Order: sequence, then C-alpha cells, then structure tokens
Amino acid sequence: MTAGEGLLGEIREQPAALRRLAADVDGVRSIAERVAARQLVRLVGHGSSDNAASYAVYAFGLLAGATAVRDSISLSAYYQAELDFSDSAVVALSQSGETRDVVSYVERARGRGAFTVAVTNEPASPLAAAAEAVLPLAAGAERSIAATKTYLNQLGALALLAGLCGGRDLSVDVLATADVIEAALAGLERAVAELAVPFAFAGRMFVTGRGVEFATARETALKLTEICRVAAEPLTATDLVHGPVAALDPLFPVWVIASDDAALPSVVAAAARARSAGATMIAAGAAAARIEGAAYVLETPPAPQPVLSPLVSVVPGQLFAWSLARAKGLDPDVPTHLTKVTVTP
Amino acid sequence: MTAGEGLLGEIREQPAALRRLAADVDGVRSIAERVAARQLVRLVGHGSSDNAASYAVYAFGLLAGATAVRDSISLSAYYQAELDFSDSAVVALSQSGETRDVVSYVERARGRGAFTVAVTNEPASPLAAAAEAVLPLAAGAERSIAATKTYLNQLGALALLAGLCGGRDLSVDVLATADVIEAALAGLERAVAELAVPFAFAGRMFVTGRGVEFATARETALKLTEICRVAAEPLTATDLVHGPVAALDPLFPVWVIASDDAALPSVVAAAARARSAGATMIAAGAAAARIEGAAYVLETPPAPQPVLSPLVSVVPGQLFAWSLARAKGLDPDVPTHLTKVTVTP
Repeated sequence: MTAGEGLLGEIREQPAALRRLAADVDGVRSIAERVAARQLVRLVGHGSSDNAASYAVYAFGLLAGATAVRDSISLSAYYQAELDFSDSAVVALSQSGETRDVVSYVERARGRGAFTVAVTNEPASPLAAAAEAVLPLAAGAERSIAATKTYLNQLGALALLAGLCGGRDLSVDVLATADVIEAALAGLERAVAELAVPFAFAGRMFVTGRGVEFATARETALKLTEICRVAAEPLTATDLVHGPVAALDPLFPVWVIASDDAALPSVVAAAARARSAGATMIAAGAAAARIEGAAYVLETPPAPQPVLSPLVSVVPGQLFAWSLARAKGLDPDVPTHLTKVTVTP
Repeated sequence: MTAGEGLLGEIREQPAALRRLAADVDGVRSIAERVAARQLVRLVGHGSSDNAASYAVYAFGLLAGATAVRDSISLSAYYQAELDFSDSAVVALSQSGETRDVVSYVERARGRGAFTVAVTNEPASPLAAAAEAVLPLAAGAERSIAATKTYLNQLGALALLAGLCGGRDLSVDVLATADVIEAALAGLERAVAELAVPFAFAGRMFVTGRGVEFATARETALKLTEICRVAAEPLTATDLVHGPVAALDPLFPVWVIASDDAALPSVVAAAARARSAGATMIAAGAAAARIEGAAYVLETPPAPQPVLSPLVSVVPGQLFAWSLARAKGLDPDVPTHLTKVTVTP
C-alpha cells in the first residue's frame, strides 16, 4: 500500500512519521531535564494541539507524577493577568508555529520566568523563535487542513517528554506503536468504509472517552466536525451521563472510545446509560468489545503500554471521518470555511 | 413578581440566593487566607460545577494573580497518579456534596498534602466531611434537576474567595450584582418567550464565549442540552473558527456571549466568521449590541465590575432554555434521563 495523496495519504503516513520522531529521542532529553526542574507544566494550543494537550495531562501525571494543565491562553494573552510563571514549564503546541495568541502567550510566560518549549512542525516559525527550546515534530509537510500525522506526533512527542521527565525512555515503545498502527491500518480502512454508509445523514454525534482517551474523544469529534460537517461534541463519560444523555434518541450516534485501563468501568457504565436512552453506538479502541450493545465495533490492537493507547485509538476516528465525508459527498481534502493556521484576532 | 414553583421559580430566586451568600463573606475570609498560602488552586466538579470552575480560572487569575486550574478527577480518583499536592489548594464544587469521584479526589488530594475546601449546598454531605473547610453556598433547596441558583452562587462564592485571596472584599459588588439581575429578570423573561418560538425545532447549537464568559458558554449549552434536548456545544471563540465553523449553515443557531472586556474583539471576530458561514446568531450579554449581524439581541445591564459579568450574562441563557423547552413541548422541570446527583461508577 502506498501512502497516496491528500488526507488519506497523510493518515497512512503516520507510522513513518512517528518513527522519524522516535528516532530523535536524544533531542528530547535535555528539554526534559529542564521541564522536570519546574513544579507545573502548562500546555497551550488550539484545536488538535489543544486535544494533544489533554493527553499530556495524563502522560505527565502517569509517567512523571507531574502536574500538567491545559492553561488559559486568554488570561495571559488578552487579559494580561499578573501570573507567576517562575516555577512553570510551558509546552506550546502548534503545527505551523504561527498561531498568534499562542506566540503571545509564550512571550509573556517567558518574560515572567517560565521555561518555554515550542513543539512544532516548523522549527523556523515565530513560535520556535519565541520559545527557549524547540522540540521538532518531524511529521513532514502536512498539506491537509485537518491535522492527522501532526496530532499523532504531538502525542508521541509528549509521551517521550513526559517519560523522560519521569526517568523513562519510551522510544522503543513509541516505535513499536508505529508498528501496531501500520499493521492495523488496512483492516480499519475496510471496516470504516462500510460503517460510513449508514451514517451518511448523521448531523450530530457525541464522542465519549475518559482519562487518557478523552484526548481521543476530542480529536475524533474535531475531525468529524471539520471534515464531515457533523456537530460532534466530545464528552467525558461522566459529562455524557450528567446532562447530554437527555438529548439522545435512536437517531443520535455516540462514538465510544474504550481502552483497557482504570477509566474503562466508567466508560462502560456511561455507554450502558447512552444505550438505554436509545443511542446508536459505535465502539472503538482496544477494549471496544467490552461496550455492550454497540451497533458497530472497531477493535484496535493493544498499544505496547496503556499510556500509549491514544496513539492507536485515534486512527479509527481519523479513517471514519475520511470515509464519512466521502459518503456525505464532501471532499475530505478541502473542508468548508477552514484555513490551516488558526487565525486569532 | 413571586418566585413561583419549579425551574422558573428557582431562576427568579437567584438574586435572593446571591444576597444570602454575600451576607456571609466573613466565613470566606479564613478559607481565603489558607488558599492564598498555596501556589496552585485545583478546581474539581462535574456539569454545572465544572462550568463554575471554568469561571474560577479567570476569577483567581484576575483578582488574585493566582494560577487556578480545572484539575483532572480521573488522574487521581481512577488512575491513582502519584501527584504532589503539598503546594496546592483544592476547591471541590458539588451542589449535593455526594458526587462520588469528587469525594474520592478530595480524600486523595488531602492525604497527599492539599488544603481542601468543599463548596456545596449541603454542609452535612460526604464532600463536606471529606474536606478540611466548607464554604456553604446558601442557595437554599434546589429541587430542579437543572442547576441555576446553585451555579450562580458558585460563581459568587468563587468571586468572593478569589477576591479575598487577592486582598479584596467583593461582597458589596456581589450584592449589587444581585440587584442588577433582579432589575433585568422581567424584561429578559419577556424577550426570551418571543425568541423561543422560532427555535422550536432547533436540534443543535453552538454557544460561544471567551475568557471569563467561557463558563457562561458552557453553562448555557448545558442548560439547552439538559432541558431542551438540543445538542448544544460550548466553544471558545477561537475553537469555533478553528474547526466547528465548517459545520455551520443557516439552520444552525449560534448563541454568542459578549461582555465588554479584553476578550471581546476575539468574540466579535468569531461571530463575524460564523455569520459569513451562514449561521443564525443570538447575541447575549452586556456587549451584545457589538455583535454585528445577530438576528436576535438579548442585552443585559453591565455588572458592577467586568469580572462579575458572568453572573449576569448566564441569566438570559437560563431563561431561554426554560422557554425553549416549553416551545418544544418538553417539561423543563422534569428533564428526560437525568438525575440530580452525578452518578459515577
């Protein structure tokens, strides 16, 4: 199978992109030492980059016992709040490195004492210039508006960084994850092509996951929204049952991401509530078979370790979004109304 | 106007509930001293309580120059991550004080060195017992499943707490905010009753706001979802234009929250993008008139200071949700599929 052109080509290129990243783990080591010296890791980014930041909260917590948070960009970039960054590391995520308010945030945080790292595909970008250190994503040129290999490499980079902050080199496991994805791609492509047909007229969806997989829920929902014009909302398992379950009916699909970890029981319970409210469910992930009553199951092979599961479980969502766009008669390579760089006023 | 029964009665009771809270500012003072002694404020809660936590990020940042974050509940309550809480204050939000994983989180955080505060309507609840300090919401019995006066008093309590952490007593301004809400209620009720009719068949919406008003966007979307079975997704102004703008068409309503502060230009710009993508817009808030091309405008009077704007700008959303439920033939007092206490497995 050759990678091919456009969004599908970039989805297929992901194993190769992830291998390029993991091959350069030594570049991450010196950055990790400086991040680990700070008490708080603040992550900033928009869109897919913010979804990767959701993953980092868990990666840093689980691999390094470190507190990492998705920080407010507005509070620094717009309100000029008088925050103390002297014990913070900032990890700023942007594919292009051109997102203006992320650059402003980094400049302000650095001026107030933060150690700042740019995680970007463009080491010559304004973001890279604003930060003290650069962690290149090495995803290669990403031409599609919808980010895929950039997102995967962001997860990989954050896992490597968090692992090294906790004294562990995860590069072998990240390389093995690339193999897992590569082996699964063709089967998943076939499965989603069939699955897209019955959803051709879906206009709204919920996507749920918890813990490490909340990032996957957010990213899957964003792909569906960007490419398929589906109003797909990501929800933690708890948030789904707290309120949005009220909006469910049999015409309302719910995409459930299930990995075999400590958060799985709450996802299984939320799925049961969604099912009893009448929702049509698609279960994806290594523990997809554990979701009772799912109309469709997209099982993925297990990742080399649970904290790396989100690198695998996002792939069915990426492929489904590509197939669904085509089933809807939309061009997945040219989404309506969108531009590649986040424009902030 | 008497308050009356049910959800509408509770919405109308809000000024009285807020006055009860602000009258007891001395109880907040000793808690604030202990919170201010810590480097990081971690907020936890589900649903409306988590929306109030979004507000706290800005209240603490702007009023106290303090870093406050919505913390991951899963990381501690499910994954048992080895986080250091010794320099953290935890502010746990729950109307009932019974939300199980929030209680688990507080127990773990306290055991690992956090100063823990329960902000709850039930000072005899398990959450209050688990925390070192209790900040009673004094909202009075809230019988509707959809939280309204609890949410407003959570914002009030967080503003008072953040203010005192920064050395400022905001109780006079919070009391004045109650007057502002009271004066606006009748006019807003009339306005939303007319507005609900054309939206009777809306099945999905986006709700956007930024900075301090992102909490309002989240809470407005949650009310619409809970009470009206509308799949309403909250988005920051930047997130709206980043991806979801692709899903917009003229049948897709966008609720825009506009307050006159540093985040307003980005909200105005996002609204312009949504409008040019064809969305029907409703603008609410003190700066609603600044949103060009809005089909409907629900202007609210200004709050005594900008950081208190979200206490006022949530009211049009609460009232609209109540009216829209009735326009849809739903009972706003008995939402489908929901229970009052967040059930977590």
